[in-house]
Amino acid sequence: MTEKAAPAPLARTVLQQCLHARLQVAPPGPESEAEWVQIDRGMVIYVCFFKGATEDMLPKMVSALLNQRLCERASGGLASVLELRGSVLLVPQATLGGRPKGRAMQYHGNVGKEDGLRLYQRFVSLCQAQLQAAGGAAAGGAGAEGAGAEVKHGTYGNRQVLKLDTNGPYTHLMEF
Amino acid sequence: MTEKAAPAPLARTVLQQCLHARLQVAPPGPESEAEWVQIDRGMVIYVCFFKGATEDMLPKMVSALLNQRLCERASGGLASVLELRGSVLLVPQATLGGRPKGRAMQYHGNVGKEDGLRLYQRFVSLCQAQLQAAGGAAAGGAGAEGAGAEVKHGTYGNRQVLKLDTNGPYTHLMEF
Repeated sequence: MTEKAAPAPLARTVLQQCLHARLQVAPPGPESEAEWVQIDRGMVIYVCFFKGATEDMLPKMVSALLNQRLCERASGGLASVLELRGSVLLVPQATLGGRPKGRAMQYHGNVGKEDGLRLYQRFVSLCQAQLQAAGGAAAGGAGAEGAGAEVKHGTYGNRQVLKLDTNGPYTHLMEF
Repeated sequence: MTEKAAPAPLARTVLQQCLHARLQVAPPGPESEAEWVQIDRGMVIYVCFFKGATEDMLPKMVSALLNQRLCERASGGLASVLELRGSVLLVPQATLGGRPKGRAMQYHGNVGKEDGLRLYQRFVSLCQAQLQAAGGAAAGGAGAEGAGAEVKHGTYGNRQVLKLDTNGPYTHLMEF
C-alpha cells in the first residue's frame, strides 16, 4: 500500500477507449424499433454519482475527464479526447456505486434518482459544451486527427444495452 | 460522503456483463493472423495489481469475484457468474492502476511486471479451478442456465484488443 487512502468519492467514472460504440437509448416498443446512438473513435465514460454530489463539482470534473491524456494518438503518444478530436459516449451506470455486502451488492451510497437525473443532465450538457468549444478552437489548428467529434449519451434510468469495439480499452478509473 | 474511506487497495477489478466478448491474445505477425479467444454469456473481469499484492490474497479475491451476485438471470433476479454457469473473460489491465497527476496518468502504484505476471497467472489458474469445481458440482443440479462455461484470458503485457456485446454491462468496481 503505497498511497494514502483517499476520501470517499462523490462521483465515480470508468473510461474506455473505443473505435466504435453503440448504445441503446430507447428499448423496442410494441410498434417501434429500439433507438440507438453511436460514436466512432473516442471514449466511453461510465458515470455514477454518490450522495452529496453537487452541480458545483461538475465543471471541474468534466474538464478533468476530457483533458486527461488517456487516448492513443495514431502517431503514438497520448492525447486527451479533446486533443484527439474524438467523440464521447456517456453511459449512466448506477451499478458503479455498488459496495459488496456478503454476496449481494448494495447501492446505499448512490445519489437519489431525481438528483441523479439532474446531475447527469448537467454533466451531459457540460461535456457537449466543452467538446464544442474545443472543436471550435481546434478547427483551424494542426494536430487534430478526428473530424465531427460529438457527444452521445444514454438515457438515465434505462438499461444501457452497449456494443463496444476497441483497439484496447485502456480502462481507467477516475473518482471525484 | 456517507462511507468511511477505505484503505488503498492491493488489486482493482472492473466487471462487466456480456452476451459475447472477443479478445485478441496474439497480434498478427508478418506471416500469421491475430489469435483471439471468446466467450458467450458471462462476465468480463479487468484486473490490475498494486505494489504489495501477494498470492495469498488471490483465493479469497477470486471467490468474491465469482460468487458476487452481479449477473441477471434470464428469469429475473441476480445470480453470481458461477450460479449462472456463465463464462469468464479475464483481461489484464494495468491502466486501472492509474492516478491523475496533472493531465497525465501515473502508474507508480502498480506492481512490477514480473510480480504482475506471476500474480496474473495464478489469478487465471484459480478462476479456472473455481469455475471447473462449480461446474462439476452443478452438473446434475437444477437452476443452471448456461452450459460449457469456461475461463478465457488475455495475454499479460499485450495490447488487449477487445470487442464486447452486452445487454447492459452493469459495470461494477471491486477492490481488494
